Amino acid sequence: MRVGILNIGTELLFGQVVNSDAAFLSKELNNMGFDVMYHYIVGDNPDRIRAAINMLFKGCDTLITTGGLGPTQDDITKEIACEYMKDELILSDDAMNSLVSRYQSMNHSMPDNNLKQAYLPSRAVPFINDAGTAPGFALSNDDKHIICLPGPPREMTRMFEKSAKPYLKQFTDGFIYYKIIRTFGLGESSMEMKLMPLIDHQKDPTIATYAKEGECSLRVTSKRKSFDEAKNAVDNMIVEVDKLIGEYIYSFDNEDFEKVVFDKLIEKNITISSAESCTGGLFAKTITDFSGSSKIFDRGLVTYSDKAKIDELGVKKEILDKYGAVSEETALEMAKGLYKASGSDLCISVTGIAGPGGGTVEKPVGLVYIGYFYKGQAKVKKIQARDINRMWNRNYTLLNMMRIVYDCIN
Amino acid sequence: MRVGILNIGTELLFGQVVNSDAAFLSKELNNMGFDVMYHYIVGDNPDRIRAAINMLFKGCDTLITTGGLGPTQDDITKEIACEYMKDELILSDDAMNSLVSRYQSMNHSMPDNNLKQAYLPSRAVPFINDAGTAPGFALSNDDKHIICLPGPPREMTRMFEKSAKPYLKQFTDGFIYYKIIRTFGLGESSMEMKLMPLIDHQKDPTIATYAKEGECSLRVTSKRKSFDEAKNAVDNMIVEVDKLIGEYIYSFDNEDFEKVVFDKLIEKNITISSAESCTGGLFAKTITDFSGSSKIFDRGLVTYSDKAKIDELGVKKEILDKYGAVSEETALEMAKGLYKASGSDLCISVTGIAGPGGGTVEKPVGLVYIGYFYKGQAKVKKIQARDINRMWNRNYTLLNMMRIVYDCIN
Repeated sequence: MRVGILNIGTELLFGQVVNSDAAFLSKELNNMGFDVMYHYIVGDNPDRIRAAINMLFKGCDTLITTGGLGPTQDDITKEIACEYMKDELILSDDAMNSLVSRYQSMNHSMPDNNLKQAYLPSRAVPFINDAGTAPGFALSNDDKHIICLPGPPREMTRMFEKSAKPYLKQFTDGFIYYKIIRTFGLGESSMEMKLMPLIDHQKDPTIATYAKEGECSLRVTSKRKSFDEAKNAVDNMIVEVDKLIGEYIYSFDNEDFEKVVFDKLIEKNITISSAESCTGGLFAKTITDFSGSSKIFDRGLVTYSDKAKIDELGVKKEILDKYGAVSEETALEMAKGLYKASGSDLCISVTGIAGPGGGTVEKPVGLVYIGYFYKGQAKVKKIQARDINRMWNRNYTLLNMMRIVYDCIN
Repeated sequence: MRVGILNIGTELLFGQVVNSDAAFLSKELNNMGFDVMYHYIVGDNPDRIRAAINMLFKGCDTLITTGGLGPTQDDITKEIACEYMKDELILSDDAMNSLVSRYQSMNHSMPDNNLKQAYLPSRAVPFINDAGTAPGFALSNDDKHIICLPGPPREMTRMFEKSAKPYLKQFTDGFIYYKIIRTFGLGESSMEMKLMPLIDHQKDPTIATYAKEGECSLRVTSKRKSFDEAKNAVDNMIVEVDKLIGEYIYSFDNEDFEKVVFDKLIEKNITISSAESCTGGLFAKTITDFSGSSKIFDRGLVTYSDKAKIDELGVKKEILDKYGAVSEETALEMAKGLYKASGSDLCISVTGIAGPGGGTVEKPVGLVYIGYFYKGQAKVKKIQARDINRMWNRNYTLLNMMRIVYDCIN
């Protein structure tokens, strides 16, 4: 079935928020075997919403909308969906009860304008909102289906999981299966040239390359009558891909590199600690993003000031005075000091100039030293990020730290 | 002028990436005074791209496309733009030289298929790509204008700043000015009711409320003949808004709360250190995201294990044994120990259960204690996040830590 996504909200056209709803819904709908044909984003304007619905239904059987279900005057999705589907709004007891009990549980009295949210199309299948006040719903007419969901991602994703997804299951035809392969060390052109024997005359599975910052990934997709058929086709193709570019692949399951590194640490039961200066805790934060990190992560010392480097890591003042905080020597001392404090199997340190200020001719913005102590040996790696953007430099440094961990323990 | 944004890339319809390009472009174009009418997202499919361009030009004078300029077979934006504008592709010397020198600077030889990227429409105004191989361009015919930019955000944003923005300046008519006001402690309905005297019969400036997770923001927008006129209209309206909901406002400039807190720390020259358990460095990372943080941030100790809490913060083993790592007592000891180590003006600590594992009946997932030591006094605040999602809990905890810092120093 062909599905379109219509995100409604002037805040999207103002660039005030990034449209994560469309990405979430696309991923889910694709996994269910639907063809997502378009995303279309319009403001809170009745005529344009009307035109968008008319236009999108020309190429799709089902439309998923987000946004415009709130209690305020500019929230008009429900009214327009109702009009298109030739239905009328009536007070829904379910929606009313849910609203009232929501306000009761928060010990707030319900503002009058929230009453608007208790009205739903008479033929609608209502979807309860666990995380907010706007109910959603599904409504059909003449083989056209519209599913209206709230805009805030937390409300939308929960309602999708709990109500919209089970409702949509009745419409699944064929099955799409796809895998995303992640690589590093290969540009998009080079990857395509290596894969040319497979890409030329591709029909199903299809192979598509996609360049992201610092890496290139690959999507292998099949749509077949059964899930097993699609999965087999993809799996067989991946065997061929592996033969051609296997050495560059770090994940066959679209895992972020940090997830791959984390899983390896867990699998091999290698404990790790970090001592960070320029990244300011980004490495520790990233490792502890994963549930279960307490099994392998002992401590992370964000020694931002020179004094903290001396106090916490025992870096000698003479080293800091002679070579500076951003130096091979300091990075090594930090890693060794961290090992003394934590005794972790792998101790990684980092010091550098994140920018945009603080650079000099000898030590420009983006200069970073990563120290590490592993199996009795202390080493250091110098990197030079080519950007003056602070965030970019910090993320690039993180990726390099992860690469060092990966290479150490692999 | 009415502008549409067309993002091309099957990866967007697969939900593989979030469409940050559309948000960036919208913000920039709005600031230039253009009306962004639509975002439209299609896959790498010639017929659908053609149909999208035809459809969008019905409601817009100018179309900005992103994506589909790469070297691979499915990159076809250039060809279709050329066809719509009745032009033909020719080998561009500028584009060719830029490609060759890019590969030279990387010490790589250019793969053959990159040659495709040196072709541009004969009447195009070429845009050099500083950060990748795909050149962009502007092309016009019969008062319709198309601007084609590459898809990867880093390449797109640079090209927009350097080439597309100066090019687009010739088309500015009226001026849009808007401000986004950030608040906490007020739901969307309550905010609208308080602002009703201003919202009713609004024409220009317009006021729109927008609910995000944990807060509600407000956009005040005016479009006038001159920048000053628009700005005055918005500024005057904000004075009225301030009278009605001033107590809930933390930023008149759409600043994130952490930025407001950071600026306050800098302004008042208050040094800060953190001792984190469940947030694993997220607080330190967030403070050091800001350039200049070394002026006020001394150190962040991510004491994930009990041993780290003892070693680094001097938390007594008896306290950990008696009350547990997640307790009021441990949070207080952590804050006090941190003060001893750092001497920072404000020392903040946090310990809790981020989840999804590790919860018990007495100490459920989401239970967090935040300790702080300020002006000789140690205090603790207990919070209970209502979610079992790890990321959400960590972010909610961060927000509470920032709120404590804000309240301490304000």
